[in-house]
Amino acid sequence: MTVDPDSGLLSPVRAGTPAEASTGDEAWLRAMLDAEAALARAQARLGTVPSGAADAITEAAGSARIDVVELARGSRATANPVVGLVKALTSAVDAVAPEAAEYVHRGSTSQDIFDTAMMLVADRTLRPLVADLDATAEALAGLAREHRDTTMAGRTLTAHAVPTTFGLKAAGWRQLVLDAAVRVRRVLDGGLPVSLGGAAGTLAAYVEYARLAEAGQAGAGDGAGAGDPAYAERLVAAFAEETGLAAPVLPWHSLRTPVADLAGALAFAAGALGKLAVDVATLTRTELGEVVEPAAEGRGGSSAMPHKRNPVLATLIRSAALQVPVLAAGVTQSMLTEDERSAGVWHAEWQLVRECLRLTGGAAHTAVELARGLTAQPGRMRANVASTHGLIVSERLSAVLAPLLGKAKAKELLGEASQRAVREDRPLRNVLDELPAITDVLTPAALDALLDPAGYTGAAGALVDRALGDTF
Amino acid sequence: MTVDPDSGLLSPVRAGTPAEASTGDEAWLRAMLDAEAALARAQARLGTVPSGAADAITEAAGSARIDVVELARGSRATANPVVGLVKALTSAVDAVAPEAAEYVHRGSTSQDIFDTAMMLVADRTLRPLVADLDATAEALAGLAREHRDTTMAGRTLTAHAVPTTFGLKAAGWRQLVLDAAVRVRRVLDGGLPVSLGGAAGTLAAYVEYARLAEAGQAGAGDGAGAGDPAYAERLVAAFAEETGLAAPVLPWHSLRTPVADLAGALAFAAGALGKLAVDVATLTRTELGEVVEPAAEGRGGSSAMPHKRNPVLATLIRSAALQVPVLAAGVTQSMLTEDERSAGVWHAEWQLVRECLRLTGGAAHTAVELARGLTAQPGRMRANVASTHGLIVSERLSAVLAPLLGKAKAKELLGEASQRAVREDRPLRNVLDELPAITDVLTPAALDALLDPAGYTGAAGALVDRALGDTF
Amino acid sequence: MTVDPDSGLLSPVRAGTPAEASTGDEAWLRAMLDAEAALARAQARLGTVPSGAADAITEAAGSARIDVVELARGSRATANPVVGLVKALTSAVDAVAPEAAEYVHRGSTSQDIFDTAMMLVADRTLRPLVADLDATAEALAGLAREHRDTTMAGRTLTAHAVPTTFGLKAAGWRQLVLDAAVRVRRVLDGGLPVSLGGAAGTLAAYVEYARLAEAGQAGAGDGAGAGDPAYAERLVAAFAEETGLAAPVLPWHSLRTPVADLAGALAFAAGALGKLAVDVATLTRTELGEVVEPAAEGRGGSSAMPHKRNPVLATLIRSAALQVPVLAAGVTQSMLTEDERSAGVWHAEWQLVRECLRLTGGAAHTAVELARGLTAQPGRMRANVASTHGLIVSERLSAVLAPLLGKAKAKELLGEASQRAVREDRPLRNVLDELPAITDVLTPAALDALLDPAGYTGAAGALVDRALGDTF
Amino acid sequence: MTVDPDSGLLSPVRAGTPAEASTGDEAWLRAMLDAEAALARAQARLGTVPSGAADAITEAAGSARIDVVELARGSRATANPVVGLVKALTSAVDAVAPEAAEYVHRGSTSQDIFDTAMMLVADRTLRPLVADLDATAEALAGLAREHRDTTMAGRTLTAHAVPTTFGLKAAGWRQLVLDAAVRVRRVLDGGLPVSLGGAAGTLAAYVEYARLAEAGQAGAGDGAGAGDPAYAERLVAAFAEETGLAAPVLPWHSLRTPVADLAGALAFAAGALGKLAVDVATLTRTELGEVVEPAAEGRGGSSAMPHKRNPVLATLIRSAALQVPVLAAGVTQSMLTEDERSAGVWHAEWQLVRECLRLTGGAAHTAVELARGLTAQPGRMRANVASTHGLIVSERLSAVLAPLLGKAKAKELLGEASQRAVREDRPLRNVLDELPAITDVLTPAALDALLDPAGYTGAAGALVDRALGDTF
Repeated sequence: MTVDPDSGLLSPVRAGTPAEASTGDEAWLRAMLDAEAALARAQARLGTVPSGAADAITEAAGSARIDVVELARGSRATANPVVGLVKALTSAVDAVAPEAAEYVHRGSTSQDIFDTAMMLVADRTLRPLVADLDATAEALAGLAREHRDTTMAGRTLTAHAVPTTFGLKAAGWRQLVLDAAVRVRRVLDGGLPVSLGGAAGTLAAYVEYARLAEAGQAGAGDGAGAGDPAYAERLVAAFAEETGLAAPVLPWHSLRTPVADLAGALAFAAGALGKLAVDVATLTRTELGEVVEPAAEGRGGSSAMPHKRNPVLATLIRSAALQVPVLAAGVTQSMLTEDERSAGVWHAEWQLVRECLRLTGGAAHTAVELARGLTAQPGRMRANVASTHGLIVSERLSAVLAPLLGKAKAKELLGEASQRAVREDRPLRNVLDELPAITDVLTPAALDALLDPAGYTGAAGALVDRALGDTF
Repeated sequence: MTVDPDSGLLSPVRAGTPAEASTGDEAWLRAMLDAEAALARAQARLGTVPSGAADAITEAAGSARIDVVELARGSRATANPVVGLVKALTSAVDAVAPEAAEYVHRGSTSQDIFDTAMMLVADRTLRPLVADLDATAEALAGLAREHRDTTMAGRTLTAHAVPTTFGLKAAGWRQLVLDAAVRVRRVLDGGLPVSLGGAAGTLAAYVEYARLAEAGQAGAGDGAGAGDPAYAERLVAAFAEETGLAAPVLPWHSLRTPVADLAGALAFAAGALGKLAVDVATLTRTELGEVVEPAAEGRGGSSAMPHKRNPVLATLIRSAALQVPVLAAGVTQSMLTEDERSAGVWHAEWQLVRECLRLTGGAAHTAVELARGLTAQPGRMRANVASTHGLIVSERLSAVLAPLLGKAKAKELLGEASQRAVREDRPLRNVLDELPAITDVLTPAALDALLDPAGYTGAAGALVDRALGDTF
Repeated sequence: MTVDPDSGLLSPVRAGTPAEASTGDEAWLRAMLDAEAALARAQARLGTVPSGAADAITEAAGSARIDVVELARGSRATANPVVGLVKALTSAVDAVAPEAAEYVHRGSTSQDIFDTAMMLVADRTLRPLVADLDATAEALAGLAREHRDTTMAGRTLTAHAVPTTFGLKAAGWRQLVLDAAVRVRRVLDGGLPVSLGGAAGTLAAYVEYARLAEAGQAGAGDGAGAGDPAYAERLVAAFAEETGLAAPVLPWHSLRTPVADLAGALAFAAGALGKLAVDVATLTRTELGEVVEPAAEGRGGSSAMPHKRNPVLATLIRSAALQVPVLAAGVTQSMLTEDERSAGVWHAEWQLVRECLRLTGGAAHTAVELARGLTAQPGRMRANVASTHGLIVSERLSAVLAPLLGKAKAKELLGEASQRAVREDRPLRNVLDELPAITDVLTPAALDALLDPAGYTGAAGALVDRALGDTF
Repeated sequence: MTVDPDSGLLSPVRAGTPAEASTGDEAWLRAMLDAEAALARAQARLGTVPSGAADAITEAAGSARIDVVELARGSRATANPVVGLVKALTSAVDAVAPEAAEYVHRGSTSQDIFDTAMMLVADRTLRPLVADLDATAEALAGLAREHRDTTMAGRTLTAHAVPTTFGLKAAGWRQLVLDAAVRVRRVLDGGLPVSLGGAAGTLAAYVEYARLAEAGQAGAGDGAGAGDPAYAERLVAAFAEETGLAAPVLPWHSLRTPVADLAGALAFAAGALGKLAVDVATLTRTELGEVVEPAAEGRGGSSAMPHKRNPVLATLIRSAALQVPVLAAGVTQSMLTEDERSAGVWHAEWQLVRECLRLTGGAAHTAVELARGLTAQPGRMRANVASTHGLIVSERLSAVLAPLLGKAKAKELLGEASQRAVREDRPLRNVLDELPAITDVLTPAALDALLDPAGYTGAAGALVDRALGDTF
C-alpha cells in the first residue's frame, strides 16, 4: 500500500511550518489519543474508572503505534476514524493491562473524542500562530516608526491621489494584524472547549457507568435509578482540566459555536495578512519598486530570468488568504446541522478546519519573515511621487486657491495648468510660475511649500504615533 | 424610466421586516445624508465650518428630496453614489443658504461618507436584530423549561441513538441564539466606527481646511505649514459623537476590520438560526410530527393539497441561513484590498453587506414568531421513541449487563434479542422476558426501569437547568 | 407602506442596464404571469381547458395590475409568491370571464410556475448578455489586431519577465470572453427548460384533470382510471412551445441541473470579464499608464482631485466579478435539496440566481463600453520596457551566450553585468560593451538585435493571428 | 524530519480511493516529471533537442527518486515546486548522461510544467471518476426499473404531498448523475490542454532555442532574427501528442478556462451525488425506513449502540458534496488573475483543485457502492403512505369532487373530513362513507379507486420509461 506524504507540495505557504506539523494526520491521531487518555483520567478522578486503568490507558495512548493510514481507510466503514482508533487503543491497552481494556472510551462516543481532538489541534496551532501574528505586528511597528515621515504616493483606484507615508501604511498593516491577533486570542482564551455529550448529547452512558460504579455490580440489578446528573458537570470539568481545554455550557455536538468561531477568526486573520501581501506585491511591481522583500539564498529567483526577484513571501501569503475565506464559509454553513449529529455536515467540517488552520498558520509564519525583512525604498517613493509633476498635491492647491481666486476660477486655472504639465511633461510648478493669476496671490516660497508632497501628509505622522501607542 | 420596487419578492424572509426597511436604498441614502450633515456639524464644532452653514446643511440633508434612481444610474460614472449625492446636496443647500453650499463635503472623500453610512445602516439594522435574537432566545427558554423532561428520540446520522429531551433540544437552540446575540452585540457595542480619512487616509484636506480657517484667508498665501495633526483626532471624535458611532484607531478605508467583523457576526447569527430551522423542519416531517409551527391565517397552506401545513417559518429562515455564509465569505475576501482604496474590491462589499444584514435581520424577525409559537407534540415524541421496540436504550442495557454476564455474552444476547424484536415486530421487553440468562440477573421491575426511555436521559434535565441559569 | 426602489445604488455595475430591467421584481412577476398563461394555452391545445378560458387567462395575465409589494409580503405565509399570484390572477380573470377563473393554475403547483418564470427571466437576460459578450470580444479583436506588434513588458509575479505584445494581451482577453460566450450560449441554446411536475413531480393533477375532461363530469364518478400517462409528455411539449423554452427529460423540481448550469456559466462569464478588469486596472496604474479607459462626460472624475481619472469601468466590472463566484457557489450547493421539494434550499436559490444574472449582465454591458473605448499607450509601454535597462531580454542573452561562452561563464558574466546596470542606472548594453568576453563573440549589430525587446516577442504575433482566425 | 502521511484521516470519503492515489503528492510529482520528459521529446521531434538527450531525460524522469518533502519545503523559496524539480531532474540526468542535462526544461517556465501536470492529474482522475458516475447511473437505472411502480410518498417542505414512485425517485437521481457525467466528459473530451507559453506566454525562449539550434552555434552571433513563429504552434502540437493532452488556442497562464471548467464540472458532479446522498439519508431515518444502505462487514455500526445502522455511504458522499462547491468557487475566483502570471492567485488554485478532484472522485467511487447496494423497503413505503389516512390523495379528491359538488362545497366537505380523520385517527375513507353528500355522487368502488395511492402516481411510470430510454 503506497502512501503519499502530506508535504505541502501544493501549499508551499505551509510546507515545513509549525502549523503543518500541528495539524497533520499524526498530530490529529495524537490529539485523539490524548483525548481518550484524558477521559479515562477524568473518570478515574471521579471514581468511575480505576485509577490504575486510567494510568494504563494513558501510557498505552502515549506509546501506541497506530497505523494512521489503516485507520483512515477503515474509517470509511463508520464515517469517522474514532471507531477504529478505539479498537486499536483497546488492543494496545489489552496487551499490557488486560483488566484496563474495558475502560477505554467508556460511556463515550466518537464525536466526543474527535471534537475534543479538533480543539486540541486548534489550541496547539493557534498558540504559535498568535505568536507569529504578534511578531509580525512588532516588525511592522518597527517599519512604521522608522518610516513615520517617509512620503510616498497614496493610491486610490490605482491612481495617485494625495501623498501619504510609508509609516502610515505599515501602521495600518500592523493594526490589521493586531486586530487579527485579538480575534484569534479571543477564540483561544475564551476557551476552546472539550466535547463531552455521549451518544446523543445527554451524557447518559457516562452517568450510567458512574451509577453502576457507585452501586457496585451486585446492586445494579435492583433498579435503574437515574444516576446523579450533577456527575455530568463534574465529569466535564475534570475532562477540561485533564486536557487543558475549557468546559462548555452544553455539549456542542450539533451546536457548532466553537468551530464556527475558530473558522471565523482564521478567515479574518488570513484576510488581514492578505492585505499586507497584496500591498507588498503591488509596491514591488517593477514600475513602483517601493519595497523589496527580504533576500535569502535562492529565494525569489527565476531559473530563466537572472534579473528577476519575485515577491515570493507575499505570493505565498496571498495564496493562503485567497483560500481561507471560502473554506471558512463551508465551516460556517456547517452550523446548519440536523438532529443530535448530522449525517455528513459534521464530517464536512474536518478537512476544511484543518486547511483553515494550516493555511493561516503558514501565512502567519511567512508574514513574520516578510515583515522583519521588508525594506522600503524611499528614493523610489520620492521619484514616484514626483512623477506626476506635482499633481499629487492638486487637492491642496484647490483648497488654498479657492478662497483667493474664487472656487470656479481656481478650478479652471488648476485644471488647465495640470493638463499642460502632463502634456508638456514638465513640473506643475513651472507652469504655475507662468500664470500671473497665481503668482499674484502666492509667493514663490508659498508655492514651494504648497507643492511639497512631504508638506501635505495631513495627520499621517500623528496617526502613526497614535496607532503605535495603542497596544491593546 | 420604469423602476422596480425592492419588494423581497425573491426574499420573502425579509419582505416587510424591519431589516428590509433599514437597509433599502432610501435608508442608505438617508444614512449618507446623515453622514454629510454630521461631518459639517463636527467641523463646525471645531471652528472649521461656520455653525450657520452646518445648520443649513443639516436642515437641507434632512429635507432634501433626492431621486435615488437617478443617483444610482449616475454613480456608474464614478463607481460610487457619493459624487452625485454631494452635487445634489450642494444644490439643495444652495437653494436655501447659498453661502453654506461650499461647506458641503468639505475636505471629504466619497469613502468617508459611504462607509460611515454603511455603519449607520448596520447600527440601525443590528439593534432590532439583536432584540429579535433576545426575544427568540427568551421564547426558546420557555420551551426548554416547559419540556425539561419531555422525552424524545435523540438522533444521530438520521437514526435513533438514545433518548434525549425536547427541553435539552430547545435549550441548545437557545444557547446558539444567545451565542449569536453575544457576537452581534460585540460588533454593535464594540463600536461600529465612523470612517474619516480623506482622499487617501491621511485626513490631509480636513487638516488643510482647518489650517486655512484658522489662518484666515489673508494669511494662507504666506506659507503652507503643516496644519495641526491633533486636529484630525479631534475631528474624528466630533464626527463620532455627531453620528453616534465610535472613533476608530486609524482610518479604515483599506483596513476592513469593521466590515469583516460585521459580516462574520451576521454569518454566525444566520447559521445559529439555521440550526433551529433545520431541526424544526426535520421534526415537522409527516412521519415525525414532533413539533408544529404556529398557525396563522393562510400560513403554510397549499392551494392544491388541503391537508398540508408546511413549516413555512423554518423554510424562510433556512433560505436565509444558506445564503449568508457565502455572501459573508465575499465580504471577508474583500479584506484583500490593494492600496489606499481598491479599484473594485471595496465596491464588491456593498451589496453583499446589505444582503447579509437584511437576510439575517429577516431571519431573526421570523425566528421570534417561530420560537414563540412552536408547539411540541409529546405524544408523537413518545410514540416515535417507542417505535423501535426498546432498542433506543440498548446502550444502557449493554452497560448494565456487561458486568453481570460478561461483556461478550451480554453483547451476543442483546444483539440476538434486538434482531428478534425487530424481525418479529414486538417489544424488546417481551423478547428479553423469554431469556433466562436475562431474567436470572434482572428482576422484572429492574427491566422495566432499564427499558424506560424516560429513565435514560442522562444529564438532560440538569443541562437544561444549567443552560437556563446561564444568561451570560 | 413605503417601498424602496431597486435602483442599483449599491450595485452601480448594473444600474440602468438591460440586465437590471429583465431581472427586477416586475420582470419576475411578468414571467410568472406569462407562465400561467402559457400553461392554460398548453392545456387548451390538448383539450383539457376550454380555449376560451385560455384566451381569457392570457389576456388577464397580460393586463392584470398586481401589486408586487403586496405579493411579496403575502408570500411570507406560504414561502413563495405563487400562491398569492394565483389568487390575484384568478380574481382578475374572474372579473372579466368568470367561467374561466377555475382554469387558472389548473393542476399546477407553485414551483412549476416559479421555476418556469426563472427560466424565462434567465432567457431574457442571457440573450442581451451574450450579445454584449460578442460585442466585447469583437472590440477586443480590434485592439488585438491593431496592436499585434506593440511591444510591452510581460509581467509575472508583478515583475517584468520578458517582452510580450499588447496584441497578445488583448487576444487573450478576447479568448476568455469568447470562452464565456460559448458557455453562456451552451446554457441558452441547450435549452432552458420549462418546469412542469405538479405537486410532487409526477404531473398527477395535470393527468387527472385531463382524464376528467375527457371522461366528462358524468363519467368521472364511475371509477378513477389512471389517466393517460403519455398526456404528460404532450403537455410538457405544449408548455415548452407556448413559452419558447425547452422540454426537459424529467421534472426538475429537485433535480437542479438547469439552475446549476446557469449559475456555473454566469460565474465563468463574470470571471472572464474580471480578468479583463483586473488587467485594465493594473495597466492604468499611474506608474504604468499603459492603457486609458474611454473618457465620458463626468466619468472617472474625483471631486477633490482634479487630475485624477479613475478606471471606473474596470472597477465596476471587477466589483461584479468578485461577487458572482461565491453567489454561484450558493446556487450549486442548492443541488443538495431533499425530497421532492426542499424546505428552504429551493428558496435560497432565487435571490442568488437573480444577483448572478444581473451582476454578470451588468458587467458584460459595461465591458462593451470598456473594450470599445480602451486605448493603449505604446509610448508608455516602450518606456516601461526600457526602464529595466535591457534586463527584460536577459533570458535571451543567456540562451545565446551559453553555447558561446559555456553556461556557467555566461551566467556569471550576465549576472554581474545586470547588477552593474541596475546599480549604476545605465543600459545593460553600455555595460556589455565594456566586456571583451562579450564583444569578442557578439558584434555590435548582433548585440543591438539581441537587446531589442521588439525582437524577442516570440510567437506573440503568430498567436494573435491564430486566435483571431479562430472564431469558433 | 517527520512527515505525515496524506491518509484521508479527515476525508474518509476519499481514503484509499483511486482519486486519492491519482492526486497525491507522488502523483503530482510523477505528472510534472512526465511533463518535463514529454517536453524534451516534443522538442526532439522538432529538432531542437537531440533525440538522445530526450531519451535520457525521459528515462531519468521515469526512474528519478526525488524527495517530495524536500521539494515541497524548497518550494517556499520560489513559490512553486518546479524550480527545485528541475534542479533535481537535471542532477539525475547529469548522473547518467551529462551531455543531456542542459536540455532539461529548455526554454521552459515553471508554469508550463506545473499546469500541464495539473491537467495530467486531472485527466488521470477524471477517467475513473466518470466511469464511477456511469456505474452509479447504471445501478440507479436498475433501481428505477425494478421499482417503476413502487408507490411511496412524495414529500415537499418535509410533508407528504401526493404519491410518487421510488422508480421515479431513482430515475431522477440517475438523471442528475448522467448530467454530471456529461459535464465531466465535456471537460475530459473537450480536451484538457497542455500549458506551453514560456516565461510570459509568448513562447519566446522555445522559439529562440529553436533558432539557435537551426542556426548552429557559430551563426548565432551574426544576428538575432526572430525565429520561426510557426515553430511555436508545432511545438505545442508535439507536446500535446507526447502528453496525450490537447493543444490550446493560446497559452493559458493567465486565461484560466481549463481550470475553471474543471472546477465547475466537479462542483456539479459533487452536487449531483449530494442530492442522492441527502435523499438516501432522509429516507433512512428511523421513522421513514424506506431505504437501507448496503451492509458490509463492520459498516455503519456504532460501538455503543448495537441496534444502529448508520447511512455511512450517504454520509461520506454528502460530506464531500458540501465542500466542493465552495472550494470550486475559490477556483473560479482565480480567473481574476493579474498580468501574465499572478503573484498568488495562480498559487491559490492548486490545493483547491486537488481537493475538488479527490473529494468528488471519492464521492463518485462511494456512490457506486451505494447505488449498487441500496435496497428499497416497499412495505415501509406503503405504511408511510397510509399513515396519513388517505390525505395523500386529497388533491385528487378535490379535483374529482369539484365538478360534482361545486368547488366551494367540495373544498369544505373535504377539509372537514380530513380534519376529522386526523383528529379521530381513522382512515379518510371511513369518514367519507358517513357523508351522504359524498356517497351520493361516488360509488364505493369509485371511492376505493380514488383513494388508492397507487392509482394516483400520474405520469411517474411513463417518466421512468422516458428517462431510462434516454441514454444521451
